Amino acid sequence: MGALGFIDGQIVDLSEKVISMEDRGYQFGDGVYEYAKVYNGKCFSLKPHIDRLYRSLRELRIPAVFTYDEMVSIHERLIAESGIQNGGIYLQITRGTAPRVHNFPDAVVPCLTMTIRPSSINAAQWETGVGVISAPDERWLRCDIKSLNLLGNVLNKQKAKEAGCYETIQIRDNMVTEGTSSNFFIVKDGVIWTYPTCNLILKGVTRTWVVDEIAPKAGLSVLEKAFTLDFALRADEAFLSGTTTEIMPIVTIDGKPVADGKVGPITRQIQKAYKDLIAGECGPV
Amino acid sequence: MGALGFIDGQIVDLSEKVISMEDRGYQFGDGVYEYAKVYNGKCFSLKPHIDRLYRSLRELRIPAVFTYDEMVSIHERLIAESGIQNGGIYLQITRGTAPRVHNFPDAVVPCLTMTIRPSSINAAQWETGVGVISAPDERWLRCDIKSLNLLGNVLNKQKAKEAGCYETIQIRDNMVTEGTSSNFFIVKDGVIWTYPTCNLILKGVTRTWVVDEIAPKAGLSVLEKAFTLDFALRADEAFLSGTTTEIMPIVTIDGKPVADGKVGPITRQIQKAYKDLIAGECGPV
Repeated sequence: MGALGFIDGQIVDLSEKVISMEDRGYQFGDGVYEYAKVYNGKCFSLKPHIDRLYRSLRELRIPAVFTYDEMVSIHERLIAESGIQNGGIYLQITRGTAPRVHNFPDAVVPCLTMTIRPSSINAAQWETGVGVISAPDERWLRCDIKSLNLLGNVLNKQKAKEAGCYETIQIRDNMVTEGTSSNFFIVKDGVIWTYPTCNLILKGVTRTWVVDEIAPKAGLSVLEKAFTLDFALRADEAFLSGTTTEIMPIVTIDGKPVADGKVGPITRQIQKAYKDLIAGECGPV
Repeated sequence: MGALGFIDGQIVDLSEKVISMEDRGYQFGDGVYEYAKVYNGKCFSLKPHIDRLYRSLRELRIPAVFTYDEMVSIHERLIAESGIQNGGIYLQITRGTAPRVHNFPDAVVPCLTMTIRPSSINAAQWETGVGVISAPDERWLRCDIKSLNLLGNVLNKQKAKEAGCYETIQIRDNMVTEGTSSNFFIVKDGVIWTYPTCNLILKGVTRTWVVDEIAPKAGLSVLEKAFTLDFALRADEAFLSGTTTEIMPIVTIDGKPVADGKVGPITRQIQKAYKDLIAGECGPV
């Protein structure tokens, strides 16, 4: 019982060597991934993750070799065999293994690997809120693809860690795009703002819950419109969304308090609505 | 005898599974690489490759765990054990294996893998020249680091292949930056132009030979200055440089002939000087 891996139809120990050094995931980051959270032994909101996986595969022209039902069934098997009731399931599909050449090799079989691990987030942060820093967004121009080319995200997340913060919000062309593993929202005069979906951000599953489900039901307007860091610093509230992050209140940006530096009421309302969605699908959390 | 791999101090068969699915190279592209060419059983110009490897590692804050002499010795061992006299040695170093989290893990050991393979380039292309196409440069803003985040390069190289061309020259902010695995040069009124070294291109080892050694000795001026695709289309000559590519004449860009569509004299002169450099270090080629 505990963390496990999956490859080639088999459950494996995570310490096993299972990948070839010429897997294109290893040499080019030539692959895509997803991450779904497990509550009470059930995956929350798995379908939009699998739908997005298929989109990412299409964009990179990697064949989809597993059906939706097969993907669901492997997720269930990992939960059952690991005994993990609360955690997360990571999956990635690479283009496969071939002698190294930049263009797509002719004969290559995609490689699916998965891991399941228990949750490790510090739950107190959802109550107290967190600090974030800002940094230039140096990523490529296809951030809408959930690809394995994550060095820009890695370097900026590391900056946050070194600043004692939870996340880095990234700035491109003077506008705040998103976090390194989360989407970024602010609330100003009762309206929720977030960067519009395009090639420069990932269309987060939790972001979509907020924009398409939670906000409309709560009678809150969402403006999908780019804004500057200065504008964010004058917001009434700010928060992050993400599968791991859920709805995370932000209380400081670059060390400056957001409004009075306390978690805002609309953030709390969205946070509660998101918990209710999880509870509706997976039971009380 | 033939293609081989190397990991953990051991020569391995390339079909062996030697990597963990949680290697950060596999999940984040969190690593760097180099590629050196072997002529007559000797590595050409290995020192600048290893120097650049150390720089890439420093930029990503991955510890350098091998000395220069150790790196040279592993290259020699791969040549000896493979029996390959003319080919290429690829090496990459990832940050290592750890449970998946974006920021740098606390305890992690870098992983060096290497492969040696025989040469596969079509030698006739150096005589006839090649066609290239142009496409938007969608890569991240740290192209000066020779990292494993290569999806932008992969997607543009695939476009070239599908167009029946050798390479794609990439356009950012209206300027031609470089190829997907080569640097790009034009000749106009006897002056050689190429994009200046900065965060947006890789400082190629062959590029450096041309700029610092071959051109000055030949009495040719080099202008490291950005130029548009339109300017390139009006050039007298064009060529690519790279370890695999060597000096590759370009005779068409986006299907249009460069000047009269024949390989130019300055390109031929540089090509010959580069062959002489190789011959000086490795013997006649």
